[in-house]
Amino acid sequence: MQPNLAVDGDRLWSTLEASAAIGRGPRGGLRRLTLTDDDKAMRDLFAKWARESGFSVTVDQLGNMFVRREGTDASQPPILMGSHLDTQAAGGRFDGILGVLAGLEILRTLNDRGIATKRPIEVVNWTNEEGARFYPPMLSSLVFSGKESVAWADARVDKEWHRLGDELARIGYRGSVPVGGRPLDAYFELHIEQGPKLDAASVPIGIVVGGFPTRGMRIDIVGETAHVGPTPMERRQNALVGAAHVAVAVDDIGWRYAAGDGKTTAARLDLWPNLPGIISERASLFCDMRHPDPAMLERMVAELETALPDCARRGRCRVEIAERWGFGGLTFDADLIVHLREGAAELGHATMDILSEAGHDAYNMAPVCPTAMIFTPCKNGISHNEAEDMTLADALPATNVLLRAVLARANR
Amino acid sequence: MQPNLAVDGDRLWSTLEASAAIGRGPRGGLRRLTLTDDDKAMRDLFAKWARESGFSVTVDQLGNMFVRREGTDASQPPILMGSHLDTQAAGGRFDGILGVLAGLEILRTLNDRGIATKRPIEVVNWTNEEGARFYPPMLSSLVFSGKESVAWADARVDKEWHRLGDELARIGYRGSVPVGGRPLDAYFELHIEQGPKLDAASVPIGIVVGGFPTRGMRIDIVGETAHVGPTPMERRQNALVGAAHVAVAVDDIGWRYAAGDGKTTAARLDLWPNLPGIISERASLFCDMRHPDPAMLERMVAELETALPDCARRGRCRVEIAERWGFGGLTFDADLIVHLREGAAELGHATMDILSEAGHDAYNMAPVCPTAMIFTPCKNGISHNEAEDMTLADALPATNVLLRAVLARANR
Repeated sequence: MQPNLAVDGDRLWSTLEASAAIGRGPRGGLRRLTLTDDDKAMRDLFAKWARESGFSVTVDQLGNMFVRREGTDASQPPILMGSHLDTQAAGGRFDGILGVLAGLEILRTLNDRGIATKRPIEVVNWTNEEGARFYPPMLSSLVFSGKESVAWADARVDKEWHRLGDELARIGYRGSVPVGGRPLDAYFELHIEQGPKLDAASVPIGIVVGGFPTRGMRIDIVGETAHVGPTPMERRQNALVGAAHVAVAVDDIGWRYAAGDGKTTAARLDLWPNLPGIISERASLFCDMRHPDPAMLERMVAELETALPDCARRGRCRVEIAERWGFGGLTFDADLIVHLREGAAELGHATMDILSEAGHDAYNMAPVCPTAMIFTPCKNGISHNEAEDMTLADALPATNVLLRAVLARANR
Repeated sequence: MQPNLAVDGDRLWSTLEASAAIGRGPRGGLRRLTLTDDDKAMRDLFAKWARESGFSVTVDQLGNMFVRREGTDASQPPILMGSHLDTQAAGGRFDGILGVLAGLEILRTLNDRGIATKRPIEVVNWTNEEGARFYPPMLSSLVFSGKESVAWADARVDKEWHRLGDELARIGYRGSVPVGGRPLDAYFELHIEQGPKLDAASVPIGIVVGGFPTRGMRIDIVGETAHVGPTPMERRQNALVGAAHVAVAVDDIGWRYAAGDGKTTAARLDLWPNLPGIISERASLFCDMRHPDPAMLERMVAELETALPDCARRGRCRVEIAERWGFGGLTFDADLIVHLREGAAELGHATMDILSEAGHDAYNMAPVCPTAMIFTPCKNGISHNEAEDMTLADALPATNVLLRAVLARANR
């Protein structure tokens, strides 16, 4: 490997700055929800950059974009790297975006250096990673993994009842290529940490050894509509009050496990009718719980289950767990992690072994092919906030390590 | 007065049944939000009935409809009675509607009996009493009273950003007559109780002596967006959790005062961004408190104010009272109440003195002219619920008492 092999930091940063101008949020971040006009503009720019560098661009039936640099052995499946270009409703300029644009920069660097690889290398932009517009998050990598169908994804609706499939067609990103079902040699995802650990320790690289065990639930609270005025307290069944008790219980559990790095979120609450003159009949609370120790996580879940009857009693509502999900709790591929460690060692960068606490498309890819992740620091660990920030100096070490790891994997 | 003077119960009930077919809710009640096509259909039917009986129909600039039966002395201001034909999002078939259609039935009965009155008598249908589509409730009677302007009302928007003024024009109920500003002799409002007291005591008539003192607040909770995953508990400022603590505090106060007939409601909660992957930054909780004793109500409000700092601390958010309002705490006109009592005595009906616990347009009319209300029972006190129910036998006593009271007032 060329000893001074490194990406062009200025070029990488210029692509991040161009991205930061598309779908600008009111407070300096990004609001580039998937399949909006802004998302289309960013996708078009990404494809233009790729084609200008001589790479092919393929779009599958869910709008996942694959930028490909050919290898010397056409019979080999590609190395895939990437992340997502969509953002949260009030998101930052780096979450997901850095992983895609660092991938493009790595391909461009290989061109600049005239480096041929045995295996092809591709960069992916996954559709609707955030789930901020269409529920659930990491939607199209889930379909790529074969766990859900394109028809299922197409039928997802946003708050204005737009179907995902219709929005894909509207912005011109309904491709013809099937989603998934083709061999991949490996999947790497570079991402900002979205937490404070690397920044606090001044360590430039997180070697993501696995996913933080995470369990989520949708809890439904059912009361009864009634007039807010004359209805005596003992006749009220206010779903908002029932949901408030559940939200407090969820939060309390997070505090009890905070010392062991446990955390809980009461994230989203839907209410009906949610009007001033009428007591609400229905509430759905989306919450999640995370803990590095799976046994502790099970205890947290059990504590919530134990707390729910009391929430129901105090809120005078029916309370039930309507849906459960989980992710994380996986370990990434040992061989790919070795490539990452070797790259960091070659460049003399300190690394920290870390668990990914957020959800990532890499979780869906892990059952499909060998998968690993590498984290960069982000300022104060702030993410899913327009104030999300990092410097080029934060981004370069992991990008250059990834360049080396991908190259090593592609030529092995 | 004719000793056997009484309305035509079958005719009254047939108008209620016709109304119950316009904007039918999924569970047998009504969803006839103001200024929708269903509201227009009901207004058109009401106007048709009025004109068929020879009454004039006037529509003012806010769509308030006035059905007028002339008196013998054209110089006299009219007696007004009525209520509203709009309903809650999941409302009943009688709330408001009975007051309007009983008024129409009273005018029709005067026609049938060939009874002339000295003063004119009018029946009003107030626009947007419920506030279920356009906030606040009792909107157009507030403008009628001179406290707000037509321009203010026009600019109110619903959840889809339709302006009230545009919707008035769309359904053809933007009249040319100014809102309010003309003399009225009296205002009577007949309404279902919307609470359980008359039904539980088997008393057919509530003489509404005043309004239950009510205080409301919009409480704003401000946290910070962050990722639901990696953000440590001690860095979280989840507005949903802050709002949950406030909602529980509001509810707890209601229970502490329930024995004295106090009650509190956490009624509506707006959250932003309210998405699964992101901690919410903003919450607005609309709550209200009611107690028959104004001194106790002040104590309830003070207890909430005292509780808020602890809610802020536990939710790690900024919590502030952003808006306050109040209604009730008024007494209705003594002379009109005498007319109502005399009517009940003539007909041999038991009555119960009662405070109105819900908000009514009568509250806005009380400063404009002598005002009073009369209540009918409703089954189990259920209202603002599609299961709201009553029988003709529940409706007739108060309707006939109102007929006598209006007649006495019109001829005095």
